[in-house]
Amino acid sequence: MSTENYDDYIEDVIGRANVADTPELVSYYKDLKTLNTGALWTVANKIEPWEPKSESEPVLWRYEDLRSKVLKSAELVTPEQAGRRVVYLNNPGRQDVAAAVGWLYSGLQVMFPGEAASAHAHSSSALRFIMEGSGAYTIVDGQKMPLGANDFVLTPNGTWHEHGVEEGGTPCIWQDGLDIPLVNAFEAGFYEVHPDLNQAITQPVDNSIGLWAGRALRPQNVYWDKPYSPLFKYQWEPTYDALTKMAAVSDGNPYDDILMHYTNPVTGGHVMKTMGASMQMLRPGFKGKAHRHTGSFIYHVAKGKGHSIINGKRFDWKERDIFCVPSWAFHEHVNASDTEDACLFCFSDLPTIEALGLYREEALAENDGHQAMPNR
Amino acid sequence: MSTENYDDYIEDVIGRANVADTPELVSYYKDLKTLNTGALWTVANKIEPWEPKSESEPVLWRYEDLRSKVLKSAELVTPEQAGRRVVYLNNPGRQDVAAAVGWLYSGLQVMFPGEAASAHAHSSSALRFIMEGSGAYTIVDGQKMPLGANDFVLTPNGTWHEHGVEEGGTPCIWQDGLDIPLVNAFEAGFYEVHPDLNQAITQPVDNSIGLWAGRALRPQNVYWDKPYSPLFKYQWEPTYDALTKMAAVSDGNPYDDILMHYTNPVTGGHVMKTMGASMQMLRPGFKGKAHRHTGSFIYHVAKGKGHSIINGKRFDWKERDIFCVPSWAFHEHVNASDTEDACLFCFSDLPTIEALGLYREEALAENDGHQAMPNR
Amino acid sequence: MSTENYDDYIEDVIGRANVADTPELVSYYKDLKTLNTGALWTVANKIEPWEPKSESEPVLWRYEDLRSKVLKSAELVTPEQAGRRVVYLNNPGRQDVAAAVGWLYSGLQVMFPGEAASAHAHSSSALRFIMEGSGAYTIVDGQKMPLGANDFVLTPNGTWHEHGVEEGGTPCIWQDGLDIPLVNAFEAGFYEVHPDLNQAITQPVDNSIGLWAGRALRPQNVYWDKPYSPLFKYQWEPTYDALTKMAAVSDGNPYDDILMHYTNPVTGGHVMKTMGASMQMLRPGFKGKAHRHTGSFIYHVAKGKGHSIINGKRFDWKERDIFCVPSWAFHEHVNASDTEDACLFCFSDLPTIEALGLYREEALAENDGHQAMPNR
Amino acid sequence: MSTENYDDYIEDVIGRANVADTPELVSYYKDLKTLNTGALWTVANKIEPWEPKSESEPVLWRYEDLRSKVLKSAELVTPEQAGRRVVYLNNPGRQDVAAAVGWLYSGLQVMFPGEAASAHAHSSSALRFIMEGSGAYTIVDGQKMPLGANDFVLTPNGTWHEHGVEEGGTPCIWQDGLDIPLVNAFEAGFYEVHPDLNQAITQPVDNSIGLWAGRALRPQNVYWDKPYSPLFKYQWEPTYDALTKMAAVSDGNPYDDILMHYTNPVTGGHVMKTMGASMQMLRPGFKGKAHRHTGSFIYHVAKGKGHSIINGKRFDWKERDIFCVPSWAFHEHVNASDTEDACLFCFSDLPTIEALGLYREEALAENDGHQAMPNR
Repeated sequence: MSTENYDDYIEDVIGRANVADTPELVSYYKDLKTLNTGALWTVANKIEPWEPKSESEPVLWRYEDLRSKVLKSAELVTPEQAGRRVVYLNNPGRQDVAAAVGWLYSGLQVMFPGEAASAHAHSSSALRFIMEGSGAYTIVDGQKMPLGANDFVLTPNGTWHEHGVEEGGTPCIWQDGLDIPLVNAFEAGFYEVHPDLNQAITQPVDNSIGLWAGRALRPQNVYWDKPYSPLFKYQWEPTYDALTKMAAVSDGNPYDDILMHYTNPVTGGHVMKTMGASMQMLRPGFKGKAHRHTGSFIYHVAKGKGHSIINGKRFDWKERDIFCVPSWAFHEHVNASDTEDACLFCFSDLPTIEALGLYREEALAENDGHQAMPNR
Repeated sequence: MSTENYDDYIEDVIGRANVADTPELVSYYKDLKTLNTGALWTVANKIEPWEPKSESEPVLWRYEDLRSKVLKSAELVTPEQAGRRVVYLNNPGRQDVAAAVGWLYSGLQVMFPGEAASAHAHSSSALRFIMEGSGAYTIVDGQKMPLGANDFVLTPNGTWHEHGVEEGGTPCIWQDGLDIPLVNAFEAGFYEVHPDLNQAITQPVDNSIGLWAGRALRPQNVYWDKPYSPLFKYQWEPTYDALTKMAAVSDGNPYDDILMHYTNPVTGGHVMKTMGASMQMLRPGFKGKAHRHTGSFIYHVAKGKGHSIINGKRFDWKERDIFCVPSWAFHEHVNASDTEDACLFCFSDLPTIEALGLYREEALAENDGHQAMPNR
Repeated sequence: MSTENYDDYIEDVIGRANVADTPELVSYYKDLKTLNTGALWTVANKIEPWEPKSESEPVLWRYEDLRSKVLKSAELVTPEQAGRRVVYLNNPGRQDVAAAVGWLYSGLQVMFPGEAASAHAHSSSALRFIMEGSGAYTIVDGQKMPLGANDFVLTPNGTWHEHGVEEGGTPCIWQDGLDIPLVNAFEAGFYEVHPDLNQAITQPVDNSIGLWAGRALRPQNVYWDKPYSPLFKYQWEPTYDALTKMAAVSDGNPYDDILMHYTNPVTGGHVMKTMGASMQMLRPGFKGKAHRHTGSFIYHVAKGKGHSIINGKRFDWKERDIFCVPSWAFHEHVNASDTEDACLFCFSDLPTIEALGLYREEALAENDGHQAMPNR
Repeated sequence: MSTENYDDYIEDVIGRANVADTPELVSYYKDLKTLNTGALWTVANKIEPWEPKSESEPVLWRYEDLRSKVLKSAELVTPEQAGRRVVYLNNPGRQDVAAAVGWLYSGLQVMFPGEAASAHAHSSSALRFIMEGSGAYTIVDGQKMPLGANDFVLTPNGTWHEHGVEEGGTPCIWQDGLDIPLVNAFEAGFYEVHPDLNQAITQPVDNSIGLWAGRALRPQNVYWDKPYSPLFKYQWEPTYDALTKMAAVSDGNPYDDILMHYTNPVTGGHVMKTMGASMQMLRPGFKGKAHRHTGSFIYHVAKGKGHSIINGKRFDWKERDIFCVPSWAFHEHVNASDTEDACLFCFSDLPTIEALGLYREEALAENDGHQAMPNR
């Protein structure tokens, strides 16, 4: 006969639930269950923890491990069969929701010259970060955008979008980032296949760059009231140039050195409502201090090599590697080179965390701000 | 020997994943798993559904069932042991997160004359809706507020708060509503017990009513930049009066008749960032049409009787009953009386859904807007 | 022969223009004039004063002086001839722009039972404060609103509006407040007479009260994106009630005691873009301290009696008197009664001043915050 | 004996004031005047015009006329004597307020190598547009910024600022633009000379460029809540580059061809609260159509040559010429070249007009959108 326990979470602390099971109470609990209810004090300490403990684990995905797997997918399935040929990153603690960390999905997608996927739209917001290859393009709501390495591209929620590689290109791999798990968590996901399977090109190539990529300039008579940035492509060169210029005037900050958030030029805020992104430069010799904050973060090494220590565990990374920092995990970044900078692209649910008023941050106080490690 | 399937979700639809398992593929999938990865096409159709299907079920909690259980809790545990003496509502589809629907927690709390709980603060936002009894009060950040039936009270995230019933009062029961599951989902929950266990009263009683409950009036020289309403208590009488006046000039709407959202007078928006609330009046004889929308909603019958049909199932309710409408569930409300109005208090995660750009709404097109039922 | 001086404003202060006229310079100045130019240093000290010195004078308009004049206008002109039968307040320093103070126009309008003016619309924003009589009404964009003493009413820029008094009423007088001089200063004034001369009534009487006068409540499904409040009438009773309740919890402030701004319930901000309004209660025995700030303010004594000292000059006022406080004039208010409160309605260009970033405020430091007066 | 007329503005139109003087009325009017009042109907048609008629005249200031005058000022006065050595533009219709058009001040300032003015601060907002010379710099709140031709620089309200030219430079001339008349109109002007006469340099040179001139990028951990842009210098090269890129994707608009507003990157809005600025490119062969709108505009020819027709009068312009367009004046721009583009810098009170809800625009309907001219 099963004996269910209801007092697994008791704490002997004033102000916390501290009720041991008795036969009378267990009987009461069983009665409550028949009414689709329960006694709060049996779960209060569980559902109101003193501080967050993430279900996600810190993970590093090495590109040298993943690249061959991604390319192999092309031998195994066609884009038509697969919808999209993607190897997705699956955090050991988030397998049930197919997330790389927290409520964020990420995957590596490959397309070959001449391939073109069909167009679809969904409630999820998506972004892409280009890893390798030439000739890749994305079409978003009738606007075609050629893509190069380290370009950052948006395909916001509700837009028709499709990807392909030009005939004369090379195999292209990029990282997808989506809020699919988040949208599913809110039971708000809708999906549509384009009625014509592919969109008509209705705008000039890179129209959004022409209109919205000026430096602190706004085009007259171009109205925009959608809840995401009208600029869909953020190119690598001007981004790296901006980091270099910021590095010339700024001391940086002790955790992230020189970091810039990609913005919606219409509002100055995040690029999309649920997900934001940044690019940061760890200058030669940078050894960051540790802090922790709420929110889930996925990093992509755009340039250079180094390591990050996340909740006391060291992860060495180099160009194209991807790693994640779960909510409230201490983390510190180190550039391995004293002569070359290292650049980390990062996307996160920070806009969501901020919109809900849930952002909190804390520096590591002890050990001069560095996490203690056995074999540092 | 176990044979795991990877093709449970295939759909034979252009633009959707349609890859049947083969030995070679299964071997590839197992390889991917060792790298904390997977093939998107094995889960794509699962994680990108055509439309939402809620894990939550429509549930009606009858007060005549719950009241005695709630009162009995006072015989079984003290407030000190339990922290708070609460019977919480546990949706059969959300038992893992102790939610009444979606990511919303709710429970019925009881306190007896002379009882006073200790003060605490947490990242979760809370609200209360008073059900019965006299002498109840809440103290929020040093401000004491006496509470009466159908009053709606805020205890926003981060505020110190505590509850009690005056010596000369009667046993009091109220409904709590919190976003605990939501905050936990984002791994952003912090909890603190007040260092002195109880707060000092530092403000006049009902200070927020004195300053902020004027009709479209703002007190001079009272600054407020917190992310929630400075008005903490919304009394029943002026709310019912406002509904009555709106009913005199408005045709109402076909789904909700006369509905008003409680607002933050500083911004005109929702009372808190994650949760909002409304009170609606179904006028005598009102028979609402069916619609569905995203977001999770908990209704509390403040006045009158009637029924709601939720995803084709009828729930008859009367004063003090509570029921929930999950995301994307069709629902229609009917006032049972041709002479008396019925009033429904409701709280929801609508501010979150809107902040994330995930609100979508649809009227039922068929059957003149009413759900078909076998025995209507 | 005329000899024009160009050095009237020189100051012998480092950093200020200090150039005395010479024949060579005067010749240069005359040359410049032929090119529609001038030398900045001849006017710099004039156009860049150390601090503002208002062209407006403090003025008190006694109702006992004005009432008979206003009534007499009815014997002299018909509404049809006059457009509106109004005696306007003309500050001695602002006669060229017909302003009561700064860029604000104000006048007292009278209408007799059965009279109805024709409808018009203009770029200027208007407000009304009702002084006496029964049966008055305003129609704004198809919505009729009955008016009583001390009610505050909006007729925002661009709306069709017209006024009248019911057949069974009495002669009615109210104060108009408009930003006509401001709109003219920006050369942005447009005026239209309604094509049908009078509007059709298309909304329920007092519709805006029904929808928007709830206490911190927002009607569902009523969209509003106009740049002014959807609530057009702010009644005296709930306003006075709110002041009374605020007085019960607040120490008030040393200059204005208990003051509340009328707000746009959609935004929590000012009722219109160019002009705002407030009602304040000077509690029995209140003797305010002096301060000064930018912005132009017109006060209307809604209740009680007392005096104000403005730039060192005392103005005794009682119910229905009107007075103005020019920009950067020190002012302090005193309630003459130790048993009755006094209430001051006030409208101003504060929203404009704030929108342009020009608000500045300063307390009088000396003499315990009170202006020195010979015969206080 | 003087006989004052009170019926100069009567109109025989229903809904307008139409009251002829009579002895009785004139006597009444004189009575009213003694009470600091007047009869509205004597001025109503004057102060409520059917549409705006600007006091400002369209004016073209030719640089070939002004340059020698500006340089000559250096022979006549020292910077110490003059404060600033500036020839200001004085619209014939706005001589009383020293405005170039509407409420906008503008002047040409010259400084010679080695000269440095003292620092001051004022409530007025200022901007500069560099015309010629090398070695010029501005220091704003401790930040030094070297300036080159066609650079656009802000010195917002309240900031300490000072200008100079390096020893090794050449004589430098730039255009100043300020809202001095506007701030004076609101009697809100304050002026301070820096206590040390000159500021310490406390920030890296061009700090704002390093932090805020990235393309749609926001520096982390750099807080900014001031009511103006944190980016103080908008350089010519990236601005011209952005116009060129916009020209590649946009059809332009019929009045302004390719026009971009300088923005505050924190908000996406105007650079300052009272004044905004834009740069526009008239592509080779562009012949704009005529429209009119509220607001006062000062153009500076940054590149090329052409003409503008303003209220039916033609103004031919070339590089460095300046002209103004008063409120509600029809205007159309034409590039004289079929091979070279022409660029017009423009600053205006558009942010003020928009903030006050006074913007209105109208295309010329007749003559295919072009103003009729005798000798076109």
